[in-house]
Amino acid sequence: MTDRPEHQYHVNGELVPASEAAVSVDDRGFRYGDAAFETLRAYGGTVFEWDRHVDRLERTCEALSLDHGLSADDLHQRIRATLDANELDDAYLRLSITRGVQPGKLTPRPAVEPTVVVYVSPLPRGGLDGTSVWDAPATVRRVETQRIPDDALPSGAKTHNYLNGILARTELAAADSQADEALMCDTEGFVAEGATSNLFFVRDEVLYTPSTDGSVLPGITRELVLELAETTDVPVRTGTYEFETVADADEAFLTNRTWELRPIESLDGTPIGGGPITAQLSGLYDELVERTCYSLPGGSDWL
Amino acid sequence: MTDRPEHQYHVNGELVPASEAAVSVDDRGFRYGDAAFETLRAYGGTVFEWDRHVDRLERTCEALSLDHGLSADDLHQRIRATLDANELDDAYLRLSITRGVQPGKLTPRPAVEPTVVVYVSPLPRGGLDGTSVWDAPATVRRVETQRIPDDALPSGAKTHNYLNGILARTELAAADSQADEALMCDTEGFVAEGATSNLFFVRDEVLYTPSTDGSVLPGITRELVLELAETTDVPVRTGTYEFETVADADEAFLTNRTWELRPIESLDGTPIGGGPITAQLSGLYDELVERTCYSLPGGSDWL
Repeated sequence: MTDRPEHQYHVNGELVPASEAAVSVDDRGFRYGDAAFETLRAYGGTVFEWDRHVDRLERTCEALSLDHGLSADDLHQRIRATLDANELDDAYLRLSITRGVQPGKLTPRPAVEPTVVVYVSPLPRGGLDGTSVWDAPATVRRVETQRIPDDALPSGAKTHNYLNGILARTELAAADSQADEALMCDTEGFVAEGATSNLFFVRDEVLYTPSTDGSVLPGITRELVLELAETTDVPVRTGTYEFETVADADEAFLTNRTWELRPIESLDGTPIGGGPITAQLSGLYDELVERTCYSLPGGSDWL
Repeated sequence: MTDRPEHQYHVNGELVPASEAAVSVDDRGFRYGDAAFETLRAYGGTVFEWDRHVDRLERTCEALSLDHGLSADDLHQRIRATLDANELDDAYLRLSITRGVQPGKLTPRPAVEPTVVVYVSPLPRGGLDGTSVWDAPATVRRVETQRIPDDALPSGAKTHNYLNGILARTELAAADSQADEALMCDTEGFVAEGATSNLFFVRDEVLYTPSTDGSVLPGITRELVLELAETTDVPVRTGTYEFETVADADEAFLTNRTWELRPIESLDGTPIGGGPITAQLSGLYDELVERTCYSLPGGSDWL
């Protein structure tokens, strides 16, 4: 067995060893977090739901008035080149686009030479090497850090300004809690989302999730789960929910790109767990991944 | 005359040409804006009000649970080395401390190997080369982007999460406005601060500024102006103010490290301007800088 070679990242058109991949300290992505990003997964060599990621990335860049000038094809090619160089079919990917280096002032200039970084890490179909996030359901605690309201930072924008979520996670550590996800509420006290995940819960066989009209990132896994639920008999509601409504749920789970659907074992110490609807949606999600990315026989045309 | 040599920045203990100064793309300062910073000025070779900057930096790092482990002396030596290498006495400085490279997860690890960057740029006593920010008073417009509330991101923390201010400035450009500073209100509609400055105004010979109990960064120039005002006959009030109260003021000015005190020529097109109290405080501020940094004869012991 040989040592695993270091991964290659893709920085401004060049493949470079991850340990040497760098950006200027004057890059606005570093100085101000002035950058958009997407977290993606490749399954069997296919970038899952690429078109949805491109759409959301464009919405983020519009919110930031960040006109990077790159085509979706160009970005896809950089991702493909990164997967190929690392000989990876199943991977975690992160695509970051910053406003680049602009001298001096906080006010951005319209002409942008973006910095484009593709990060990659092996992520087998069933979970990321060396971590156990998929081996166990999530333990979740409500934190005091509130989600930034949409009028201060557009909730739909996925940016390098991530301290809000970091502070939420830091609260878990400060409370000496074993919880691995922080549940954040909005400024009015309604349940919003996890630091890196969207929240779903089931009560009386109805599926609920906080609406993206609130301070909620429109997660792509969230969107897919909602669409999959529409193909079942399970009624779906989106809206504004109190914490107690969630704590009292029959089932609850979190979603994000890497976790997919992850049941919530407990919320503030109260057991919830998955259940039949969580399991049904997880199964449908797995089938979607198989059908879309692995082209297994038996794929239907329902999508 | 020879070409001016490129500036040297100070990155993790090494002086490097600014164009080569870089951080890893895996640095949390880049990935998440997970970093604290201070904007400083050197006058006549002295870092102005260094102790106050150290105090605020520590408060920021505490808010972020970022235990960088570096002494104030160590940081000061890096700044001194940067000034010396660039043969600069009068300069703009920026000191950034990030949580460094930590593999994988959003949740920070307690053990931090920080990334420390000192930026420098010549900034003569009277204003930054090539810009005219000091040559003209500020034109200010109110924007719709609200200041992030303290419960979402501590208002007292000066971090690399600066998109809130960038979006405020972007609104000015989108409105095709000639304004050079954006006035932001808090989520309740009260006046908070500019994208990179604190606000003062004068009505009926009383000096007002929004309280740092609200969504207001405790600017060091703001703090000095308040202390200077206490040495005069001008009454000082801090509190919560409506936009109309400011628009109707007799005098108004902005403060930050680089601008010092900068009169507001107009707010949303309504002329305001400086006046006798603005001029008096500007004079006292100049004297303070002279006395503290240039050790001119006539320095008193009032500070």
